[in-house]
Amino acid sequence: MTLVQKITTGWTQEESLVQAIAPNKVLNIGVIGYGYWGPKLVRNFQELANTRVTMVADLDGKRLEELHKAHPTVEVTNDYHQLLASDVDAVVIATPVTTHHPIARECLLHGKHVLIEKPFAHSSVAAQELVDIAEQRGLIAMVGHTFEYNPAVELLKDIVASGELGNVFYAYTSRTNLGIFQKDVNVMWDLAPHDISILLYVLGKDVLNVSAVGGAFVQPGVHDVARLTVNFADRIQAHIHVSWLDPCKVRRVTIVGDKKMVVYDDVEMLEKIKIYDKGVQWPERTESYGEFHLSYRYGNITIPRVGLNEPLKVECAHFADCISQGLRPRSDGAVGVRVVKVLESADISLHDSGRPVPVVL
Amino acid sequence: MTLVQKITTGWTQEESLVQAIAPNKVLNIGVIGYGYWGPKLVRNFQELANTRVTMVADLDGKRLEELHKAHPTVEVTNDYHQLLASDVDAVVIATPVTTHHPIARECLLHGKHVLIEKPFAHSSVAAQELVDIAEQRGLIAMVGHTFEYNPAVELLKDIVASGELGNVFYAYTSRTNLGIFQKDVNVMWDLAPHDISILLYVLGKDVLNVSAVGGAFVQPGVHDVARLTVNFADRIQAHIHVSWLDPCKVRRVTIVGDKKMVVYDDVEMLEKIKIYDKGVQWPERTESYGEFHLSYRYGNITIPRVGLNEPLKVECAHFADCISQGLRPRSDGAVGVRVVKVLESADISLHDSGRPVPVVL
Amino acid sequence: MTLVQKITTGWTQEESLVQAIAPNKVLNIGVIGYGYWGPKLVRNFQELANTRVTMVADLDGKRLEELHKAHPTVEVTNDYHQLLASDVDAVVIATPVTTHHPIARECLLHGKHVLIEKPFAHSSVAAQELVDIAEQRGLIAMVGHTFEYNPAVELLKDIVASGELGNVFYAYTSRTNLGIFQKDVNVMWDLAPHDISILLYVLGKDVLNVSAVGGAFVQPGVHDVARLTVNFADRIQAHIHVSWLDPCKVRRVTIVGDKKMVVYDDVEMLEKIKIYDKGVQWPERTESYGEFHLSYRYGNITIPRVGLNEPLKVECAHFADCISQGLRPRSDGAVGVRVVKVLESADISLHDSGRPVPVVL
Amino acid sequence: MTLVQKITTGWTQEESLVQAIAPNKVLNIGVIGYGYWGPKLVRNFQELANTRVTMVADLDGKRLEELHKAHPTVEVTNDYHQLLASDVDAVVIATPVTTHHPIARECLLHGKHVLIEKPFAHSSVAAQELVDIAEQRGLIAMVGHTFEYNPAVELLKDIVASGELGNVFYAYTSRTNLGIFQKDVNVMWDLAPHDISILLYVLGKDVLNVSAVGGAFVQPGVHDVARLTVNFADRIQAHIHVSWLDPCKVRRVTIVGDKKMVVYDDVEMLEKIKIYDKGVQWPERTESYGEFHLSYRYGNITIPRVGLNEPLKVECAHFADCISQGLRPRSDGAVGVRVVKVLESADISLHDSGRPVPVVL
Repeated sequence: MTLVQKITTGWTQEESLVQAIAPNKVLNIGVIGYGYWGPKLVRNFQELANTRVTMVADLDGKRLEELHKAHPTVEVTNDYHQLLASDVDAVVIATPVTTHHPIARECLLHGKHVLIEKPFAHSSVAAQELVDIAEQRGLIAMVGHTFEYNPAVELLKDIVASGELGNVFYAYTSRTNLGIFQKDVNVMWDLAPHDISILLYVLGKDVLNVSAVGGAFVQPGVHDVARLTVNFADRIQAHIHVSWLDPCKVRRVTIVGDKKMVVYDDVEMLEKIKIYDKGVQWPERTESYGEFHLSYRYGNITIPRVGLNEPLKVECAHFADCISQGLRPRSDGAVGVRVVKVLESADISLHDSGRPVPVVL
Repeated sequence: MTLVQKITTGWTQEESLVQAIAPNKVLNIGVIGYGYWGPKLVRNFQELANTRVTMVADLDGKRLEELHKAHPTVEVTNDYHQLLASDVDAVVIATPVTTHHPIARECLLHGKHVLIEKPFAHSSVAAQELVDIAEQRGLIAMVGHTFEYNPAVELLKDIVASGELGNVFYAYTSRTNLGIFQKDVNVMWDLAPHDISILLYVLGKDVLNVSAVGGAFVQPGVHDVARLTVNFADRIQAHIHVSWLDPCKVRRVTIVGDKKMVVYDDVEMLEKIKIYDKGVQWPERTESYGEFHLSYRYGNITIPRVGLNEPLKVECAHFADCISQGLRPRSDGAVGVRVVKVLESADISLHDSGRPVPVVL
Repeated sequence: MTLVQKITTGWTQEESLVQAIAPNKVLNIGVIGYGYWGPKLVRNFQELANTRVTMVADLDGKRLEELHKAHPTVEVTNDYHQLLASDVDAVVIATPVTTHHPIARECLLHGKHVLIEKPFAHSSVAAQELVDIAEQRGLIAMVGHTFEYNPAVELLKDIVASGELGNVFYAYTSRTNLGIFQKDVNVMWDLAPHDISILLYVLGKDVLNVSAVGGAFVQPGVHDVARLTVNFADRIQAHIHVSWLDPCKVRRVTIVGDKKMVVYDDVEMLEKIKIYDKGVQWPERTESYGEFHLSYRYGNITIPRVGLNEPLKVECAHFADCISQGLRPRSDGAVGVRVVKVLESADISLHDSGRPVPVVL
Repeated sequence: MTLVQKITTGWTQEESLVQAIAPNKVLNIGVIGYGYWGPKLVRNFQELANTRVTMVADLDGKRLEELHKAHPTVEVTNDYHQLLASDVDAVVIATPVTTHHPIARECLLHGKHVLIEKPFAHSSVAAQELVDIAEQRGLIAMVGHTFEYNPAVELLKDIVASGELGNVFYAYTSRTNLGIFQKDVNVMWDLAPHDISILLYVLGKDVLNVSAVGGAFVQPGVHDVARLTVNFADRIQAHIHVSWLDPCKVRRVTIVGDKKMVVYDDVEMLEKIKIYDKGVQWPERTESYGEFHLSYRYGNITIPRVGLNEPLKVECAHFADCISQGLRPRSDGAVGVRVVKVLESADISLHDSGRPVPVVL
């Protein structure tokens, strides 16, 4: 069993170090950071049958007031250490990237399970330390790779795994719009974790190396546009285009195989996945003399029905279930580490004229 | 006057070495190569008031028969040397890339003006030789950069030139579909001439260097997917994505400025150009203490009316007019050379891990 | 001041019979019916600063459990009479159409303000009775015409009112999809209230008559497809197409004037309104002899920025503000009556071969 | 064999009154009217192997000059009687609607086969006379219902005929844009022939009655917007929406069955037909007590590959083949008469408040 297989299939029950909690217990959830994701996280954990949000920490008093209005039973604080001292079973960390590691570390050391927004941490060393602490203490450290819980991405993985596409040639993704400029990370650290986690999950291959080029147009030194080339095992190449400076909202993954091709467009409301029965037609046998002609096969397009489950709700439920049943999450810390390693190498390349930089997963 | 300015504004009448032909004369046009573009070229030159097609050469007898059926007055031959000996004033060359130079050279040496399909030639040395011969003989050597005659591209150029976008940060283009596999060139030589000629024309800047990455998935050694990063003067960066292996037909140019952003989508029938009044909002004055917040300005989108003139017809008419009036064409040989030089450097990069390769225009 | 003017501009303060409540008081809101709209209503009234939901009634115990999980402070009951006896200031009624009148009547008689989902009632007599009771008791009876609180519809109204379109020729709307089959009403009563309320609000004209044709394909006697033709004052015609049996989700309003045309497409995420600078071009002066040629003017398309406020939140806030400040709501009962009158006449036409049936507003 | 069946399957060889011409003969084609369609018709008949255009008549000398430039071998005239006296075997009539009958009548009386642009004639009596004359003389009178030769429409017919949709409930079509105002006909006579011919061809049902409403906004008395309701046999209803006054170009046919639904969108370049595996789900057995719940089945969407043949070329080739081989055309005069009859009844309804008017095919 390779690492990749292990990660995509999950722990077996025996391997699990996590102490299962009685399945009927309602888990107390704390949330640190009530910005863009915070309200969505609170709503989902309030709606789930086996969780309730008991405390939320944020520095912005006005945001906490709004939270209190909508959810009067949730305690609020502007000092997240109160959560550590409280009876919360698990903490969701939705703060700026560079704070993920110190806050999560404290939570784990106080015996709290953690769900950390992507990217898992700002460096692979920091990320690995969180994994190690969680492992030692029998706690769950999960990363919020929401797309791994997206029904469309699950279907995409199934399509690739089924062999329907034939041999996968390459994949490319675009994730662009006017983005929220981050202070502590560039566009690559902000947006590419989505694409890298999707590609690792869907292709199920190891990464060999990565190169990146881009530009820092608005804030000197902070790239707002970047394009990565990721070389996976088995000669599969992927291209990732992320931008904070684009008039159009694009969220798109294309995977091209020698038999079929598939496009996943997350901006589409209903037609999220299109399978194109198009492919290269090689001549039936090699002609003895002279040249052969490549042509294309053009067939139908199929748009499979994709479930409408809210990915964040699936993710939250998965986090709660893993805690209750002592299971390893789909997007556990090890997955978080892998994504951070790809980002780290890409960042080196981005500052070194786009030369390919190895990734050791 | 820089070279760029010279090229984009054209020769002055005095500089012109071309001998003007009496404006009322109907020009005799010959066409070599009656494949995909051939029929369109013949139709257009037949419809123009001051040209007529008198002879067409192709190796495929069946194609010539079809031509004869539709245009009974046009002479056909499978030996293009007959055109050289005939009374055609100008020859249009629509043959495989590597034959452009030898055929065009012969035509020029026989005193014929030439219009050559893009790319102008397979190497910059070959391209430059054509320019030199034409110059010496007072003949026109024009390259068929059709997009420079496209009303949408002209409007794009006007928008950039007007300053409406503010400072241009970057541009990117996508040109993808199931492409016709070429035997003598890779996808970059096949498709990127369009994008490079558009960017040179619209941005009006010199190119400093170019890098390229990609993959050769179907035919070993012949790239079918490529992504170029072109660094222009004044810190403008462009990204070009071309693919023969994509389920979706995309023909798209995005230009991002600090005031506005514009998208030109050639696949759209009517809404070809969208100007987004979106931009980065810097805080009015630098706050003395602490941080400032970048935000966006979201305004209207404007879709200007674009003329419906057929670009190829405009190009054909321009070729005829330049011959008749002794003018230098917008896309003259020097422009052709520039595009070939960018392609040459990109090809070196493509085979050298994507390192940036200088371009000396 | 015509009725139309009065309704679209609202009561003056003096006309108001409603007793204003102290503006700082937090209003207690009850909700009857916790189906599709219920959760959205509860969330919004919980989030507003000056309202809180104190009790919700529904017959479905499982739904109430879910509500209790997400909003632990809200009391639940399966007997809506408990709300009447409680201290709620206002009741939101989101139950099947035919129950609107009896439930709302009880609420009003118990001194509660009411917000009733569209359509206001199942008959104009019932609707008028609600208006009369509310008027007598100084209470607010508001109808949930959400689209009147939609920023795009407000912009549409402004565009028409500004005269930018010139003289309005006609309007048409489409509202189709696989709809939820209602048991107590046909597709026209279910979906057309949206379109009728939009048209009344945007055009600000009286309705003269209406005709309707359609089909009852799935449930005999219950139309699932209907097309209305509404003749407004000033020779403006509108066409309304509603369907529960359509593979495509369409929510679209087109208004054609002699100067410009505008399309409001609610399915679009960002480009909701497009103003087409297209129009009929009459010849400059009538030529004395013979014919004149009509032509078109084709200009730019403008996509104005539309605010992203959630219409339901605006509606809920407006309801609360009208109660607190004793104001007449934009979509008050009188507006509800007007929409019901159009529906009543249309229903007669639908069952009488589509003959035009007068509407007396 | 019903009339409908006969028409959709064509004459048997024996029934044919047409005298077959030797298949190898190249037919001489004359064209009367060189406006919008003229150039397309000339190009196609020039390109076909078994036809050549020998003469074209139009009143506009400038248009004839342009024709002569592009097609130097074609004779031109501004008196169409010269065609009658010439050796043309067949005449294509692309003139204003009200002239179809007199010109076609003359052509037939001079022994020429005719292909008449839609609608076949301005009245059913005139249309029938053309059919009768053609029949007596053994000539072909074909109507240019181009859509019956459109690969997408043929596929649509196959889909309906295969039973894949289940029982067809209803169909609706939209054909809108800024249209060319006709002088001699309203929008219904101009555009609806397309939709009526498509529906007759695809559904293969007789028409019982038709109603129509609309508006004459620009030219008094000449409707520029119209909506027809066509009741076919077997309780199938169709709705046709045509407009000359619409900012958006729509060409769309939706057919809803109880098993599946299909949309044909002619504006789409590639995804012309979408088959939605959506339908109403009836409960498996009627529950003894109380109510049953209707629901929907949501399955995949399939976009079948549609051939890219130019419909007009197929139509022209079919016309030539029918002449050469003595076959009855798919869209022969009898089909033309049927469409005109539906239009005639619709016109009566349009001027009589939209009451249903019977159609006797």
